[in-house]
Amino acid sequence: MSRYWSDFVASLQPYTPGEQPQIDNLVKLNTNENPYGPSPRVLEAMQALLNEDLRLYPAPNSDRLKSTIAKHFKLDSCQVFVGNGSDEVLAHVFNGFFRQSEPILFPDISYSFYPVFCQLYGIDYRQVALADDFSLRLTDYLQPNGGIIFPNPNSPTGRLVPLDEIRLLLDQNSDSVVVVDEAYIDFGGVSALSLIDDYDNLLVVHTLSKARSLAGMRIGYALGAKALIEGLDRIKNSFNSYPLGHLQVAAAVASFEDVDYFNDICHRVVKARGALIESLEGLDFMVLPSAANFVFVSHTQCDAAQLSIQLRERGVLVRHFQQPRIANFLRITVGSVQQNAFLLGLLKETLAEL
Amino acid sequence: MSRYWSDFVASLQPYTPGEQPQIDNLVKLNTNENPYGPSPRVLEAMQALLNEDLRLYPAPNSDRLKSTIAKHFKLDSCQVFVGNGSDEVLAHVFNGFFRQSEPILFPDISYSFYPVFCQLYGIDYRQVALADDFSLRLTDYLQPNGGIIFPNPNSPTGRLVPLDEIRLLLDQNSDSVVVVDEAYIDFGGVSALSLIDDYDNLLVVHTLSKARSLAGMRIGYALGAKALIEGLDRIKNSFNSYPLGHLQVAAAVASFEDVDYFNDICHRVVKARGALIESLEGLDFMVLPSAANFVFVSHTQCDAAQLSIQLRERGVLVRHFQQPRIANFLRITVGSVQQNAFLLGLLKETLAEL
Repeated sequence: MSRYWSDFVASLQPYTPGEQPQIDNLVKLNTNENPYGPSPRVLEAMQALLNEDLRLYPAPNSDRLKSTIAKHFKLDSCQVFVGNGSDEVLAHVFNGFFRQSEPILFPDISYSFYPVFCQLYGIDYRQVALADDFSLRLTDYLQPNGGIIFPNPNSPTGRLVPLDEIRLLLDQNSDSVVVVDEAYIDFGGVSALSLIDDYDNLLVVHTLSKARSLAGMRIGYALGAKALIEGLDRIKNSFNSYPLGHLQVAAAVASFEDVDYFNDICHRVVKARGALIESLEGLDFMVLPSAANFVFVSHTQCDAAQLSIQLRERGVLVRHFQQPRIANFLRITVGSVQQNAFLLGLLKETLAEL
Repeated sequence: MSRYWSDFVASLQPYTPGEQPQIDNLVKLNTNENPYGPSPRVLEAMQALLNEDLRLYPAPNSDRLKSTIAKHFKLDSCQVFVGNGSDEVLAHVFNGFFRQSEPILFPDISYSFYPVFCQLYGIDYRQVALADDFSLRLTDYLQPNGGIIFPNPNSPTGRLVPLDEIRLLLDQNSDSVVVVDEAYIDFGGVSALSLIDDYDNLLVVHTLSKARSLAGMRIGYALGAKALIEGLDRIKNSFNSYPLGHLQVAAAVASFEDVDYFNDICHRVVKARGALIESLEGLDFMVLPSAANFVFVSHTQCDAAQLSIQLRERGVLVRHFQQPRIANFLRITVGSVQQNAFLLGLLKETLAEL
């Protein structure tokens, strides 16, 4: 606390990211990273830039990356915004579109950064309860609002909203921006980006941190109507002209170019998820349907918080949220086949002892 | 323009960065990049990270980089804040300390991003005129204010404020934060960081884009009292938990570790600046005293705007600002010995023709 802070700083309750321990040999199943590394072509593209040209500023608008993404999704470059991780993209989205007279809406159980962005920008919000089965009912969002945002698939639940329900929402909510935060869409969901040309208030946000295995590089993007992207660009150019460096752009471009690698690792994660769910159910876990690279589980007998501590002591990190309704759940990232086997072995041991 | 924008978005006048043309063979003397690349040890450190671990999130607080910077400057880690370029650091500084009831103060001729940050955060500001010789008189800042910021050396002038004047200002201005933006300090200035332990309202902002040759990597930092850094961390953790990726941290750490390389290239730039100034004066340019890696010049006969166009046509970019008081000046980055010779040759030709 300091008398020099702007008034609102003292009131901020910052987001708590999942632990990034600097300890070797921990199996990290707590922050939904991909068990597979980025494409070798990504590493080669970065390698090629390790030279004296790093002394030069990057292109301020990352045009090469924008046009690569546009081409990949059959959009125009002016429909693409890029940023330093999807969190930065989301921050600009909240600032640019959600400072309205009505409160914005998002699920009560969801990405816990949303209320933090609201604090940062003085945005009023209303949390809409998920159904008892943790499904997201978009019909509940048909109420006056200054904007709507939800992850799809949702985190930490993993549950997916079908595209036709998103279309219904957009049909009936044309006065505010609807943001679909698709960080996990590549693990089995259907993206809302096919609706972008039909709805000028739809914004789809993606990250390269999950399916594209580049959490360590900080790259995210948003897709939407030209006027929405222009609004984001105005903010970005009033905040930091050069959010992405040379290596971020090169890594991202190469990632989009290596389609086969991407499809292969997504397929492997989805397959591993199926096997993991089956095994967890065999250990008396209740597992929510998941379209993401994690599963959200609750044990019929064991307390989730206690289980997460036990797992940590034995070298596996999973995520436990101290939050009403989900305090007895664990969010477990789908790891490699070996990591999942290790987790399951530990769970068997731990459950036997409890 | 879109009806979905938050009200203030339409009013933003974004910062215009110097051109980053994607054309080969242009001599770029317009954005004050270092003519020398980063240390070979920086490239090696980045090389070592081109592997599958890029799938993992970085440490959210970049602790390794903070402790390296702290050690380098004989400070404590809790006195260091890091961000994605010094522009991001400055944005958080404006948001965190400058939203006050009194207007903030900065020079009328200065970094043109300052008024843009003010727009973004709704901050009232007053521009304090530089003296006729473009020197910055800190005694003019002894007036009610919500904060003070100035670059030292100033840009685009290159002029330096001596440390004792900064100390005098701090002695008489203890109710608001004083930010010394030292992007160019390593080319001959004396940093205000020696005053940090004496003044809890002093913040010093640095970048790795200039003297450390890493503009393409986007790394900046701030040094100050623990409570100021804590305020910045609260904002950062409400905006983007992971602003710096693995390679940014590794590059920055290695840069601080290779002291000899750093000293050598700074020395070379300073030496080249001296020679450049002498030659420019020989061509009838008035050159302001410079403690930066650029010179601010005005020709006794030739119009600056016209000269900048002529130079561009012949392959050299310099920076011209359409702004009262300095419309007849050019800001020219000190390039390599070869680049400077090329520039001088062109200037001779161009001046002879005009």
